[in-house]
Amino acid sequence: MPIARISVPAHMTADKVQALADAVHEALVSTCDIPANERFQLVSRFADRDMIIDPTFPDMSRTADASIVEITWLAGRTAEKKRALYTAIVGGAVAGGFHPDDVMVALLENLPIDWSLGRGEAYGGPKPG
Amino acid sequence: MPIARISVPAHMTADKVQALADAVHEALVSTCDIPANERFQLVSRFADRDMIIDPTFPDMSRTADASIVEITWLAGRTAEKKRALYTAIVGGAVAGGFHPDDVMVALLENLPIDWSLGRGEAYGGPKPG
Amino acid sequence: MPIARISVPAHMTADKVQALADAVHEALVSTCDIPANERFQLVSRFADRDMIIDPTFPDMSRTADASIVEITWLAGRTAEKKRALYTAIVGGAVAGGFHPDDVMVALLENLPIDWSLGRGEAYGGPKPG
Repeated sequence: MPIARISVPAHMTADKVQALADAVHEALVSTCDIPANERFQLVSRFADRDMIIDPTFPDMSRTADASIVEITWLAGRTAEKKRALYTAIVGGAVAGGFHPDDVMVALLENLPIDWSLGRGEAYGGPKPG
Repeated sequence: MPIARISVPAHMTADKVQALADAVHEALVSTCDIPANERFQLVSRFADRDMIIDPTFPDMSRTADASIVEITWLAGRTAEKKRALYTAIVGGAVAGGFHPDDVMVALLENLPIDWSLGRGEAYGGPKPG
Repeated sequence: MPIARISVPAHMTADKVQALADAVHEALVSTCDIPANERFQLVSRFADRDMIIDPTFPDMSRTADASIVEITWLAGRTAEKKRALYTAIVGGAVAGGFHPDDVMVALLENLPIDWSLGRGEAYGGPKPG
């Protein structure tokens, strides 16, 4: 159930966007035990004026293709897994044509009771009385 | 002050989108004590290629109208209320033409000091000294 | 590394949108010790039907230009700093033509290990091995 919000510039080629989306999903699967078919991604395309990304902070050399990946998922992954996730996302993105400095990632966490994957059923959490 | 981000496919009819937005708000009011006029919703429409939703994970049968509802609100609701919320959202959505498997919900929580509803005033939290 | 998502109505003038984006960034810098070049903002423009904002809750008088600013950043700022942030954002927005009731702000927090600003490197958190 991670939901990945992938924000890219509108000028990015379809192939490159797809490469980033694939890299994010494959990294979640290979490093964080996400099942291969647990894929939920929303891609938003921004005009240049609407995507304001500092080109160098803190010590990067970003290009016009700098993108942001925000993942909402369950709390509980270790720092080691998160580090592996970042490495894998960027590894996949670079294979798809990205500059390694062009992929920013932010994680937001919640709990099993905070998800319903459909049918009005809670994904987890304390069972009703 | 919940903010609900409602992500739907661009091909969805206006009536169906409105039904989902109404279902989300009415469920917050009826199950979680949100005042009837505390409505803040952002609807984003995605081209098919930009909304990647697995059709079956974990045991669902989603259609091309599968949608995602992300609600940011105050921490503190019980598991029981969250379960009631999911049931009510999907109940309203189904009444508006949705397949019950087509509504995913994720909740993100923060604290009263993390909101300003306007005028630069904090909604809550410790008062200044 | 705050990421600011700025949601505005599509009819808003480019100058006014820019004023809000500048106000958000300058407020982060002046009140919360964000470096001047640490600027990451995503501006989304919504058709009127897709941006549902109650005009008065709880005691506001919002106009058709009501906007929402969601900031994801590191946990740890004091209530005092958050209050100063809200005041500064609205101060800057008003200088740019906004009605003070038209700027809503929500904060979401995470930890240093939850960020990678590029190159696949974690921003912070426990060091490996």
